[in-house]
Amino acid sequence: MSDLAIDIPEVKAEVEGVFAAYEEALVTNDVETLDALFLADPRTIRYGGGENLYGIEEIRAFRLARPAAGLARTLSRTQITTYGRDMAVAATLFHRESAPGKVGRQMQTWMRTRDGWKVVAAHVSVIGEG
Amino acid sequence: MSDLAIDIPEVKAEVEGVFAAYEEALVTNDVETLDALFLADPRTIRYGGGENLYGIEEIRAFRLARPAAGLARTLSRTQITTYGRDMAVAATLFHRESAPGKVGRQMQTWMRTRDGWKVVAAHVSVIGEG
Repeated sequence: MSDLAIDIPEVKAEVEGVFAAYEEALVTNDVETLDALFLADPRTIRYGGGENLYGIEEIRAFRLARPAAGLARTLSRTQITTYGRDMAVAATLFHRESAPGKVGRQMQTWMRTRDGWKVVAAHVSVIGEG
Repeated sequence: MSDLAIDIPEVKAEVEGVFAAYEEALVTNDVETLDALFLADPRTIRYGGGENLYGIEEIRAFRLARPAAGLARTLSRTQITTYGRDMAVAATLFHRESAPGKVGRQMQTWMRTRDGWKVVAAHVSVIGEG
C-alpha cells in the first residue's frame, strides 16, 4: 500500500475554501457557521487560548458565551496540507491589534464528510513574539 | 461515498502504540526516536511552547538545541482518535512539577506511511490552570 498522496490540487482547493469560510465566520462571530464547520461528535476537541474543550457540547457552550468584540485578526504563514482525499491540516499564525508583541497559532485537523469538510480537532494558543 | 470510519479498534491500537513510544522518547530526550516519528517533509509543522517551526529541518534544529533536563511530565485526559485507516489525532493535557498552576496541551496529527506512523503536524502550548 502506498502512502496517502499529499496536496492533491483539487482537494487542497476544497480545504482552502472551507478554511476561508471558517475565518470569515470567526471574525464576524457567525456562531452558526462556526458550529456547522466542527464535527458534531463527542470526540471533537478544541484546545483554545484559555480553555480545554472536549466534545462538541463543550465547544458549543464556549462559542455561545464568547464575547463578540475584538475578533479581527491578520493571518500569516498559513499552510494548508491535505493527506489523501479525506483529511487535511490547516495551520496559521495570527496577530491582533489589541495584542501587540503576541503571535497566535491556530492548527486544525479537517475531515471530509458527506456533509462537507469538518474540523475534528483544533488547538489555538498565543505566545510572545520570538 | 461514506465517511471515514472513526476509531477502528486495530488502527487505534497501532496509534496508541506509537503515541506511547513518542512520549517515552520525549521524557528521555531520545532525539533520534523523536525525529524518526515526525514525517521528514518540508510541510511538517510543529508549533511549540515558545516557537513556530515550519518543516522538518527547523524541527530537527530545535530538538538538537533543546535542554535535556526537566522533561518529566504527567499526562491526563489523553484522547486518541483515528479517522479511517491512515490518519489519527492524539490530544493530551500534561503537567510538570516544575510548573505548578500550569496545564500543557499537546495535539498531534498522525499519518500512516510505509515506514510506520508519523506526526505530520503538532501543537504544544501551556496555559494557566482554569
